[in-house]
Amino acid sequence: MEHQEIMTTYLAAFIRQLSAMGIRYAVVSPGSRSTPIAMLLAEHPDFQIYMDIDERSAAFFALGLAKEKRKPVVLLCTSGTAAANYYPAVAEANISRVPLIVLTADRPHELRNVGAPQAIDQIRLYGTHVKWFEEMPLPEAEEEVLQFVRQTAARAVVTALQQPAGPVHLNFPLREPLVPVLKPSPFAGEVPVPAIENFSGTLRLSEETVEIVAKEIREKDRGLIICGPIDIPGFAEAVVALSEKTGYPVLADPLSQLRSGRHGKERIIENYDSLLKDPKWAGRLAPNVVIRFGAMPVSKPLTLLLKKVKTAAHYIVDGGNGWRDPVKRGTTVVYSDEIDFCKKLSNIIVMNPVSEWFTMWEKLNQQARQIVTASLEVEKTFDEGKTVTELAAALPDGSTLFVGNSMPIRDVDTFFQATDKKIRILANRGANGIDGVVSSATGVSAGCGKAFLLIGDLSFFHDLNGLLMTKMHKLNLCVILINNNGGGIFSFLPQADEPEKFEQLFGTPTDLAFEYAVKMYGGSYIQPQNWDQFRAALSEYKGGLQVIEVRTNRAKNVETHRKIWSQVSREMERYFQGEQQ
Amino acid sequence: MEHQEIMTTYLAAFIRQLSAMGIRYAVVSPGSRSTPIAMLLAEHPDFQIYMDIDERSAAFFALGLAKEKRKPVVLLCTSGTAAANYYPAVAEANISRVPLIVLTADRPHELRNVGAPQAIDQIRLYGTHVKWFEEMPLPEAEEEVLQFVRQTAARAVVTALQQPAGPVHLNFPLREPLVPVLKPSPFAGEVPVPAIENFSGTLRLSEETVEIVAKEIREKDRGLIICGPIDIPGFAEAVVALSEKTGYPVLADPLSQLRSGRHGKERIIENYDSLLKDPKWAGRLAPNVVIRFGAMPVSKPLTLLLKKVKTAAHYIVDGGNGWRDPVKRGTTVVYSDEIDFCKKLSNIIVMNPVSEWFTMWEKLNQQARQIVTASLEVEKTFDEGKTVTELAAALPDGSTLFVGNSMPIRDVDTFFQATDKKIRILANRGANGIDGVVSSATGVSAGCGKAFLLIGDLSFFHDLNGLLMTKMHKLNLCVILINNNGGGIFSFLPQADEPEKFEQLFGTPTDLAFEYAVKMYGGSYIQPQNWDQFRAALSEYKGGLQVIEVRTNRAKNVETHRKIWSQVSREMERYFQGEQQ
Repeated sequence: MEHQEIMTTYLAAFIRQLSAMGIRYAVVSPGSRSTPIAMLLAEHPDFQIYMDIDERSAAFFALGLAKEKRKPVVLLCTSGTAAANYYPAVAEANISRVPLIVLTADRPHELRNVGAPQAIDQIRLYGTHVKWFEEMPLPEAEEEVLQFVRQTAARAVVTALQQPAGPVHLNFPLREPLVPVLKPSPFAGEVPVPAIENFSGTLRLSEETVEIVAKEIREKDRGLIICGPIDIPGFAEAVVALSEKTGYPVLADPLSQLRSGRHGKERIIENYDSLLKDPKWAGRLAPNVVIRFGAMPVSKPLTLLLKKVKTAAHYIVDGGNGWRDPVKRGTTVVYSDEIDFCKKLSNIIVMNPVSEWFTMWEKLNQQARQIVTASLEVEKTFDEGKTVTELAAALPDGSTLFVGNSMPIRDVDTFFQATDKKIRILANRGANGIDGVVSSATGVSAGCGKAFLLIGDLSFFHDLNGLLMTKMHKLNLCVILINNNGGGIFSFLPQADEPEKFEQLFGTPTDLAFEYAVKMYGGSYIQPQNWDQFRAALSEYKGGLQVIEVRTNRAKNVETHRKIWSQVSREMERYFQGEQQ
Repeated sequence: MEHQEIMTTYLAAFIRQLSAMGIRYAVVSPGSRSTPIAMLLAEHPDFQIYMDIDERSAAFFALGLAKEKRKPVVLLCTSGTAAANYYPAVAEANISRVPLIVLTADRPHELRNVGAPQAIDQIRLYGTHVKWFEEMPLPEAEEEVLQFVRQTAARAVVTALQQPAGPVHLNFPLREPLVPVLKPSPFAGEVPVPAIENFSGTLRLSEETVEIVAKEIREKDRGLIICGPIDIPGFAEAVVALSEKTGYPVLADPLSQLRSGRHGKERIIENYDSLLKDPKWAGRLAPNVVIRFGAMPVSKPLTLLLKKVKTAAHYIVDGGNGWRDPVKRGTTVVYSDEIDFCKKLSNIIVMNPVSEWFTMWEKLNQQARQIVTASLEVEKTFDEGKTVTELAAALPDGSTLFVGNSMPIRDVDTFFQATDKKIRILANRGANGIDGVVSSATGVSAGCGKAFLLIGDLSFFHDLNGLLMTKMHKLNLCVILINNNGGGIFSFLPQADEPEKFEQLFGTPTDLAFEYAVKMYGGSYIQPQNWDQFRAALSEYKGGLQVIEVRTNRAKNVETHRKIWSQVSREMERYFQGEQQ
């Protein structure tokens, strides 16, 4: 066989196996060395190809798409720094447990480390940030090699999906000429190859072990179920059932997917961030048992409360057997499927579902909700908190909302109230970067057809390139851009008291008229002048790229937030005084 | 001492030592964890701070600045994916030997791998792509630790600069509170600390070793001195002198800094790319000795010629003791300072400076130059080759030109003729990525006051964010944007014959109106309609950001290039026929 035939046979075997394993999406960046893989992916009838010129954007796009689909997405780029551009998204995927199959084309061995163009050391390029790395062999058409290639494709899919899910990296050395043989198509009229099946067990505790947990819980009446970012279908029902059996309220991070949906919302506490802002109430709200699911919640006051509580039994339940305990108060780390754990524990516990403890949380939560809602209702000027409540009200049932890091996710945490509408809320909360957010949201929109994105101006700027995908692939993304002209989060930090260097180092105002960028990408741009116009822009959104820019003021925003929190604190004072009488 | 005082003492010792070692520039991205380093850098009177919101851009900006200054530049960012964004520029700096001092702030040990926010594994984050990594200790104010910190700062500078120069990475774990003590300023009224001196030897061959080289050379009359990318002051004079003594012509890559400047241009051959395009003349032009300096030249025909010549003595001279021989024809790898090698060899060799061999190259070079010049002179429509010749004519003496990868650097190679004007030509030719080019050029402009950038549309799009620095720091960058709406280089590759998938996978037209982006960044935008307008735009450039967009056609461009090369080949046919008669 000729070189090009051998290469085609070898790569076709790989791609056919990816397809047999159910992979359907590939995000590809143009390049020379990756030519045969790109052309064969495009030739195979099963793959939808998203071309993305900027590899950093491409990787975040794939991350968003994989997150939305809960399935691995293929990434493909050429050799050299192109592959290094994937690094931020790969690191994020690794921590936030998103399955990615990263394919990098590489120079063959004889062109490595000898000054050849576009060659960097790609062996273990992503270091500890991938679950698995494999240096692929040079193309051969021997059956043993082809079977290795099929096995590796299957294994890449299984490994990326295995809990905790994450990115895997395969590096393909390829020689010129790089054009594969497509006539006849290697996939034409083919008998489908079978997948290499993977039967994978689930972490389940024995009845005896669950009884140990139950025994401890039965004695404790001040329990909290705390749910951080977690996205497992069926978890909401299971954890609400556990709450009913234990009588413990459920503190639900916006990324726990518990604040919205059809499940019962009576046991969901979503205003704990406001309730815990004033540390003087920490004693009253301190639990004696904590059951945590998912990653750490975004709320800093909650983190501080957990830190203070040194004597509580503190369970950290993780089906991906992580040790996600930055507060270091965990007394038992439970490696178990979360739903199985909830069900088994619910089966053997019967406590008072509306204990005094539960009722206190319920009442305080309602009060906080009223204060937040009432304060924001009368707010005439553009405010970041009110943007969240207005957005929450406007989002249609069944929407998907992507939330930027830094301030937006904190604002959503504080101000997004529980609702029966189904709203899936997603964010990049592995490493919490402000990078790649536009691209991730765009990838999500590719997955579910339409997405909303709430984002700050620095983060929006950081990933402006990500908007190109909405143009090139006709995707539907409605961006709610909160523009406070700089890094709003720093106004909440101690450096805000050093006005001399503050604007230079932290405020970093860019004074950009984003309208131009939106026009360049063929989107529509609206800068509402009042809340009515804001609501109208949201409700009239039909599709394509639309950017609604809300101009806010960093100083004013800090003020509004602090005002609400002090109102909440005063209300709590009243509550606890009334209790004492 | 309090935590903040200790942290301030520790970091001030580090920064003071960087200053003592002569470091003057820091490129900083906003972030929380890096707060104390950023504030202390800003507090120190010696540092010029460039704030850059996008860390990928920041790293390429620092790369450009360091390249221009031939001095290390400090990079600083916060923890998490921010640091991963540096990866492409770090990989480029490592191969192209640009000194960078990368400082990443990190979470302290107790917040690593435990699910804390904005924490990724930063230990050896850049793998094999940095020269040196050091995990710094937590801040302490013990004298022994402070002395270690000073030593590490000094060593970072020395290591980054030591041949081959490159990036180093120091990772700083820092605890909250993160605001340093600036009142009183730790740098106020201070006695300057002494630098830790470094006396570093130069690689020099013994007289005996040089005589071995000279002995071989004296017997060979068909020698070529080939200079790839190299940027060492004084090298031009030394290598021209060597050419005069040996009678060998100097084939000069545009990045060898030999095509322009005050040194003698009589011995410089710059049209070898056109001369060697038609492989049928390879036999006539084949050398029996090759002396190579610098990285591999960009010219593919030259690479192919070197591959064909299997019996020539082939010296690869590298003061950075690399083994940069992708054609694998090196017979002797010389680790020596390039200038010292040229001088020593020149001292002991006297051959005919205008041998038949030299005269042949000289004549052919002149003929090729005439053909290129004449063909382009009559070209009325916008053409990529003519853009280069027009630009070369318009560039003022003393200019700096940054050249994008993919087609622009190849066009400059083919069409940029030798000139007595001093024009420094720079590019990212380590890994040859199309990423980060705008930012690198912007960094160069920060270093030398004003820069010109020749770039293609995909590369320009890839790093559009880089333009923000021209706005935020009032830099002078004149961009000549060659917009052929997609990946022009692929039209020269075999996949161009697969029209079905070509535009989707390789052409990737974006149809972007870049005028909007330029406006957003406060630049001026010109789209000339004819060559007169193009010339006027260049000659009237006063400063700030200016983008001159030249619209070309990919297919037409391939045609023009090929027409010129076939003319050159016909002319060579005539030359060699005449010679035979």
